[in-house]
Amino acid sequence: MRFNSKSGKFLEEAIMQFSSLPGIGRKTALRFALHLLRRPENEVENFANAILSLKKDTKFCSVCHNISDSDLCNICADKTRDFSKICIVEGIHDVIALEATSQYNGLYHVLGGVISPMEGISPSDLNIASLFSRLDEGNVQEVIFALPATMEGDTTNYFINRKIENKNIEVTILARGVAIGDELQYTDEITLGQSIINRKPFEK
Amino acid sequence: MRFNSKSGKFLEEAIMQFSSLPGIGRKTALRFALHLLRRPENEVENFANAILSLKKDTKFCSVCHNISDSDLCNICADKTRDFSKICIVEGIHDVIALEATSQYNGLYHVLGGVISPMEGISPSDLNIASLFSRLDEGNVQEVIFALPATMEGDTTNYFINRKIENKNIEVTILARGVAIGDELQYTDEITLGQSIINRKPFEK
Repeated sequence: MRFNSKSGKFLEEAIMQFSSLPGIGRKTALRFALHLLRRPENEVENFANAILSLKKDTKFCSVCHNISDSDLCNICADKTRDFSKICIVEGIHDVIALEATSQYNGLYHVLGGVISPMEGISPSDLNIASLFSRLDEGNVQEVIFALPATMEGDTTNYFINRKIENKNIEVTILARGVAIGDELQYTDEITLGQSIINRKPFEK
Repeated sequence: MRFNSKSGKFLEEAIMQFSSLPGIGRKTALRFALHLLRRPENEVENFANAILSLKKDTKFCSVCHNISDSDLCNICADKTRDFSKICIVEGIHDVIALEATSQYNGLYHVLGGVISPMEGISPSDLNIASLFSRLDEGNVQEVIFALPATMEGDTTNYFINRKIENKNIEVTILARGVAIGDELQYTDEITLGQSIINRKPFEK
């Protein structure tokens, strides 16, 4: 749909901005804009201010690079967490996903990406030096790899593991296998192959 | 996913705002927020300002109630349009959809809704009085009903038609029938029934 000249420049600008969001086309962007037009002015102001604040006021934790309101994120500042475990993740969304499971009580380290020669991302582009500094402090007993199950994720795991294998730190990785609720016939061959190789004693 | 306490109040506020948009849940809202976090500050400012402008600076046409940058919308101000035709639509999105077809050169009248006793929307809640004023000026020769093909749309058509049937104005309605690209077996019975009743001479 084209509606530049007919529908006014303010609507057009809002549509352009909304359609820059991931997965949003012009039709959905138009729907968002018309939705906001129908809402009271103070609500729309709050909407715009939340976006401004998000960018201006959000900080990143100086220890683990997670999103934070202050110098130290809520996880690193939480004395009840297990400081002997560091879970290495690609991004903030992974911290959120793992926290939502309520199954992990250790700390995190957000790399900000994974090593990818194809995309020109080398270890120096990631938060890896600060990871080694944390490990050098000597309190960490376990490093958990929770990077994507892709070639780039595996490459990054290998790179980090090589640097720390002489440090007497236990290194673990998230279990890979058939997802809960999945049917075997629809599980890809590599995952299924890994899951039979890594089969576990059945718990009664 | 719950991540209020862990991920910072600015992120949480942005997620809350984005998830107030139609069809957007918390996961997609999080994706939008993290996407904006990665963009440069000036781009995020432009985004927020576009939303503010949309609400503050957008006007509505004093004649047809379409969205506008000034007192008169681009369609009502366009001397090349056919001022003898008025197409009656529910909302701005309908003007945009019809304009996108490039098949209509008349004017519009945006009702801002349809009559719905169930939702307590009566004719006085809609831009109907201003429609009759326009018709009273005597220049209009055709009124085209382009309201939704629902009971409420039909009710609104009947209401308007009763008020203007003595005015010597031709009243038409959008053709209803099998949509282009649709297969008959998947077309609902009422639409298919209407399309056989209203069948047209085949054009070679």
